[in-house]
Amino acid sequence: MNSRKTIAVLCGSLRKDSYNRALARTLPALAPEGMEFDVLEGLDELPHYNADIQAEGFPPKVDELAAAIAAADGVAFVSPEYNYSIPGFLKNALDWLSRVQPAPFAGKPVLIQSASPGIFGGARMQYHLRQVLVFLDALPMNRPEVMVGTAMQKFSDDGKLTDEPTRKFIAEQLKAFSAFIERVSP
Amino acid sequence: MNSRKTIAVLCGSLRKDSYNRALARTLPALAPEGMEFDVLEGLDELPHYNADIQAEGFPPKVDELAAAIAAADGVAFVSPEYNYSIPGFLKNALDWLSRVQPAPFAGKPVLIQSASPGIFGGARMQYHLRQVLVFLDALPMNRPEVMVGTAMQKFSDDGKLTDEPTRKFIAEQLKAFSAFIERVSP
Amino acid sequence: MNSRKTIAVLCGSLRKDSYNRALARTLPALAPEGMEFDVLEGLDELPHYNADIQAEGFPPKVDELAAAIAAADGVAFVSPEYNYSIPGFLKNALDWLSRVQPAPFAGKPVLIQSASPGIFGGARMQYHLRQVLVFLDALPMNRPEVMVGTAMQKFSDDGKLTDEPTRKFIAEQLKAFSAFIERVSP
Amino acid sequence: MNSRKTIAVLCGSLRKDSYNRALARTLPALAPEGMEFDVLEGLDELPHYNADIQAEGFPPKVDELAAAIAAADGVAFVSPEYNYSIPGFLKNALDWLSRVQPAPFAGKPVLIQSASPGIFGGARMQYHLRQVLVFLDALPMNRPEVMVGTAMQKFSDDGKLTDEPTRKFIAEQLKAFSAFIERVSP
Repeated sequence: MNSRKTIAVLCGSLRKDSYNRALARTLPALAPEGMEFDVLEGLDELPHYNADIQAEGFPPKVDELAAAIAAADGVAFVSPEYNYSIPGFLKNALDWLSRVQPAPFAGKPVLIQSASPGIFGGARMQYHLRQVLVFLDALPMNRPEVMVGTAMQKFSDDGKLTDEPTRKFIAEQLKAFSAFIERVSP
Repeated sequence: MNSRKTIAVLCGSLRKDSYNRALARTLPALAPEGMEFDVLEGLDELPHYNADIQAEGFPPKVDELAAAIAAADGVAFVSPEYNYSIPGFLKNALDWLSRVQPAPFAGKPVLIQSASPGIFGGARMQYHLRQVLVFLDALPMNRPEVMVGTAMQKFSDDGKLTDEPTRKFIAEQLKAFSAFIERVSP
Repeated sequence: MNSRKTIAVLCGSLRKDSYNRALARTLPALAPEGMEFDVLEGLDELPHYNADIQAEGFPPKVDELAAAIAAADGVAFVSPEYNYSIPGFLKNALDWLSRVQPAPFAGKPVLIQSASPGIFGGARMQYHLRQVLVFLDALPMNRPEVMVGTAMQKFSDDGKLTDEPTRKFIAEQLKAFSAFIERVSP
Repeated sequence: MNSRKTIAVLCGSLRKDSYNRALARTLPALAPEGMEFDVLEGLDELPHYNADIQAEGFPPKVDELAAAIAAADGVAFVSPEYNYSIPGFLKNALDWLSRVQPAPFAGKPVLIQSASPGIFGGARMQYHLRQVLVFLDALPMNRPEVMVGTAMQKFSDDGKLTDEPTRKFIAEQLKAFSAFIERVSP
């Protein structure tokens, strides 16, 4: 399996100058050959999940996101930690996507990254997300874990990841993810 | 402290016939004398949290919710579990409220309830919420824990909690919460 | 890959009449053809983990357990929940095993089961164990999750799992685990 | 309540030169006037928890630890993180203590500290411990959270906490704990 791999990217920040959005933009430059990224936009267009809305039909954006995830070879979450857990709007997108059949995340290899100004780099978000992924039946990779702490020192003012050890570490994670996809994909 | 106690209620479901909304409506009938409930509505009017929006000023609904919580003697969460965690839109409300100063949840006694069709009654949501409450510096009561499983057997078709053991158990929890508020409030 | 599969079983209870030990004994009768079980005994012979002891050499029992796990095609945890988490002595065994190189759990397919008298069947233990397994770099299967609640109604007095729906459900889990092993093993 | 306060200390490392043991020894020098510490030793003398042993009578050490905790004004956990969770032998001590009646931790104010060579300073252990404390019905303080990362840079070779900002931060935590005890104690 030396072919192309498409990774659907779900970003957990809506802020224009977000470190996590910057991190997501950096992925293509650090990825092994043949790995491509599709940053899924419009999560903020989704209504707050409500089963009464669902009963009248999924919002078209939900179907669109589900299709992109189902078609991808893997999914990458790139997200900050809010209040020691998953950002609400990102969780809201998962609450919608979890209702779609066939389940878009089922058996899907997953990569997790987070960045934050604090020292922990979003670790607490990652473990809550992993519990959610059990229900979604996804396959998150274990190692290496990428948690970019003290982010203001690692990104330039114009939103480029400039810290060389971090770039190298993420390149290693993406390479490991490529192998993980090949290993666990049916 | 034999005086009135006002409890602000945050409900984690938007569905009209939600078991959790029904549970929240049941609280006044089961509470000890002097305990009153203010179910906070409009969480679904909040935009998805975005620091760029915040920079231009909090949505008025955020300030309104924060004021109601700050003024209350305690807060009750009544929420389903979505995907083994907190419903995204409820977490989104907390993401907004966590940015308000002075912190509305700081030192606030908290009660947690959940209902679900499944057997666990929302337990996994409760432990994730407790981790969020560490950051919010709130004081969740430990016991008794109310997780109403197999909810369809315990509510009538018109949304009344009819299961007598569950009603009694919740009455005990509310009585314990009254004592907890008196103990930990400054 | 139609060949035999050996599953190393780690049981989280030392009580002679433990429901979880009874559950572990039931596995061979419910497993697909070719799946065999090796219940690892002697976890209670391990000293409490102490790096000073390790510095003088691993206890022989640690090496023995590590070798059995490394040689197995998968690992099954069958454990109660103690105080909303992993039993201490089982965690102690993992603390020892995590220091062995090469890492015995790395890449190993893992099955989790729990039984308890309470209604949740040990669920809270399972999610804590899953977080530990991230560090151990193991691959726990997501579904189906086996949490045998109200255990006294499902086991006979002489420690046989008699509840037919539970037996069927576990047989399905073991079948799924067989397929999972084939999918993720290198 | 200006009187003396006795804090029972449970340390999660058995290693002689442990950073966490060193941290526990530092507490008296950083505490407000009147706060005294009783580091409970002998956790490693406890057998692995086994209900069959309990049925024949608690080991005397369990009763002794329970009595010390029950008599204390608060409990401090000072512990490393092992495999993203609570050290097994410390959890084993809690598994024993949780069976003692009256419950020694019920309503007890709790302080949590951790130190580790890594950058996170044991954070993942702390959130698992907080979930256990829900069951034990203890009252862990929320803030400030003390997680001493990169410990080798903050302790001298002879086991003294020399990092001044960390010393100051811990002094603040202990002062906050003194106020917390006064607030929540009956």
